[in-house]
Amino acid sequence: MRLDDLPTPSLILDRDRFETNCRAMIDRCRRLGVGLRPHMKTMKSIDAARIAIDPQHGGITVSTLNEAEYFAGHGIADILLAVCITPDKFARAAKVAGRVERLGVFIDDPGVAEQLAAFADRERADFDVWIEIDSGDHRTGVRPDGDQLLEIGEAITRSRHARLRGVATHAGHSYECRTAEEMRQVAEEERLAVVTAAERLRAHGMSCAGTSIGSTPTATFMEAADGITEIRAGVYQTGDLVQEGLGTCARADLALSVLATVISHRREQGRIVLDAGGLALSKDRGTDANGAASYGALDLPAPLSASVSRVSQEHGEVHGADAALFEALPIGAKVRVLPNHACMTAAMYDRFHLADTDGDVSGVWERTNGWS
Amino acid sequence: MRLDDLPTPSLILDRDRFETNCRAMIDRCRRLGVGLRPHMKTMKSIDAARIAIDPQHGGITVSTLNEAEYFAGHGIADILLAVCITPDKFARAAKVAGRVERLGVFIDDPGVAEQLAAFADRERADFDVWIEIDSGDHRTGVRPDGDQLLEIGEAITRSRHARLRGVATHAGHSYECRTAEEMRQVAEEERLAVVTAAERLRAHGMSCAGTSIGSTPTATFMEAADGITEIRAGVYQTGDLVQEGLGTCARADLALSVLATVISHRREQGRIVLDAGGLALSKDRGTDANGAASYGALDLPAPLSASVSRVSQEHGEVHGADAALFEALPIGAKVRVLPNHACMTAAMYDRFHLADTDGDVSGVWERTNGWS
Repeated sequence: MRLDDLPTPSLILDRDRFETNCRAMIDRCRRLGVGLRPHMKTMKSIDAARIAIDPQHGGITVSTLNEAEYFAGHGIADILLAVCITPDKFARAAKVAGRVERLGVFIDDPGVAEQLAAFADRERADFDVWIEIDSGDHRTGVRPDGDQLLEIGEAITRSRHARLRGVATHAGHSYECRTAEEMRQVAEEERLAVVTAAERLRAHGMSCAGTSIGSTPTATFMEAADGITEIRAGVYQTGDLVQEGLGTCARADLALSVLATVISHRREQGRIVLDAGGLALSKDRGTDANGAASYGALDLPAPLSASVSRVSQEHGEVHGADAALFEALPIGAKVRVLPNHACMTAAMYDRFHLADTDGDVSGVWERTNGWS
Repeated sequence: MRLDDLPTPSLILDRDRFETNCRAMIDRCRRLGVGLRPHMKTMKSIDAARIAIDPQHGGITVSTLNEAEYFAGHGIADILLAVCITPDKFARAAKVAGRVERLGVFIDDPGVAEQLAAFADRERADFDVWIEIDSGDHRTGVRPDGDQLLEIGEAITRSRHARLRGVATHAGHSYECRTAEEMRQVAEEERLAVVTAAERLRAHGMSCAGTSIGSTPTATFMEAADGITEIRAGVYQTGDLVQEGLGTCARADLALSVLATVISHRREQGRIVLDAGGLALSKDRGTDANGAASYGALDLPAPLSASVSRVSQEHGEVHGADAALFEALPIGAKVRVLPNHACMTAAMYDRFHLADTDGDVSGVWERTNGWS
């Protein structure tokens, strides 16, 4: 089967590029002397996880209980849910914990820690607890030098079934960096935050074996990982235009695209319209510092160049088209659009169609979505 | 069951408000003397369609072949796919056409019209063809005064199985209006464009019974519908913050929300974090003229007021929280978030949970998503 035979819009994965990207991050973590716990929030696919997993580590990261259930059902034994858990989710998480060797959860509140400890002991539910640290992103997480860190640690340490596994952070503010030097600096802040927090817990007699950090920009640019046991990152697996802008990958590394069909030519206005709009591409424009002027770039042979300037629900408009572009993209032509933000775009699809750069389609990977 | 018993994030529909909104538009179209062909791209649910359909008209509008297949499978007999079709989609559309009384498609290109006419006659596939007109939105559609209108009309008129049903337009530029007066003016441009196009086709001896217009802003503000046979609109069914900003609905009319859980308090930074982020809410910020400063507004009793200032994939951050807000929203509390753009938010969910304003949950409506 060829790409041109697929219905549009469809989500396309260049499997060779995906495997190369995964291998490169495994190698990079090995050079840094840390484990890689790949974040599966972008791909949400067991086929992808089997390639992304670092065989020397074995674990994965997920962003929802639905993903945790999906990967547990496919035999992944070590799962970390890297979003703060609340009591309403304890019972559902405990069911996952009962099916795997290790289920880790994030906590950043002493009250929740007390409740989790009580729940775990009452229900004999074994959880790994990671205390989330705020290393500068200011989303969730406690200060590495504050009282809450110790209060959470003590609450969990008193439990017989909830185990204090370690401390973790995500330097999401790396997405606002404009230079590699800035990203290296954020990576060092990220590292120092968890190392400091872990040392404080240990100084107070608590066990804190794990130190987990990660974002694709910091994982790519960091120079030393002293005191770190594992890196969590995800979007490096496919890359996207925001990542290209950040310098974590090149255009030729991008593994994810949306296959679209040209549905309209408005020659007098220089406009070509695709059947991939705001739903098929997502409306993500990137971050303030690393935003995109468009909703995606058309994957065209040089010297052709074009992007999606405006979207509505099922229409993507390419503005400023010249005669060469109209000739290259007649009505009915298929074209691949590279997404700004792979995680948001992929979430609109139930499956990846695997293709190589020549357009041969070799298979399908299913993926999970949603929260239920 | 109560709202607090649902997992989060979940998509919540206030059924009473939804029914009231649907009834109001049916009544409005009746007063204007036109049929209503509700656009189901927002709701994508047969339960919703049964309420939204104007019994005196019977038809619906859809935005994808997947929706057409879904609604045909649930017995809807008159479906208009309001996005230009291309030859690669003819066979799939013909299967739908074979299951319903009327399947309409949009065309804005003479070459596609020739190919559709040939396909329809060869395959004995009965299509209704609507020629799409550009009434000023500059997305797809031919000019009402141009040659392509007549060329498409003639190509379809020569076919025995493709029938020229009418002309249609969508005044999407109404979303850039800042006042009701501007919206009334766009509505009049929208009306004139299809009336002009229909008269030109008729003057050239072609049959053109249908004149179809529609967007929620123009449908809400138009004062006369002379020469129009039907209105297509969709998001009026639920409303959203963009529509409230446009003045097509009030806050108390909004029928759609995302139920979220408070997962983190960062008191020292005035931040409350929800488990509804960029995926659960969408990253739609509205239009240039009618954009939102946030990613959604929390549905709180007065005088409390708050919105989601920053999102990442599974986190929604409320900034600037004061003591009263921290007290109203403890960790674990459930809160409803009103979306900027209902169509984009709803597309992230497989079902609606029906609830009333008191928080009682009365059922579930399934919905379709995607393109396959």
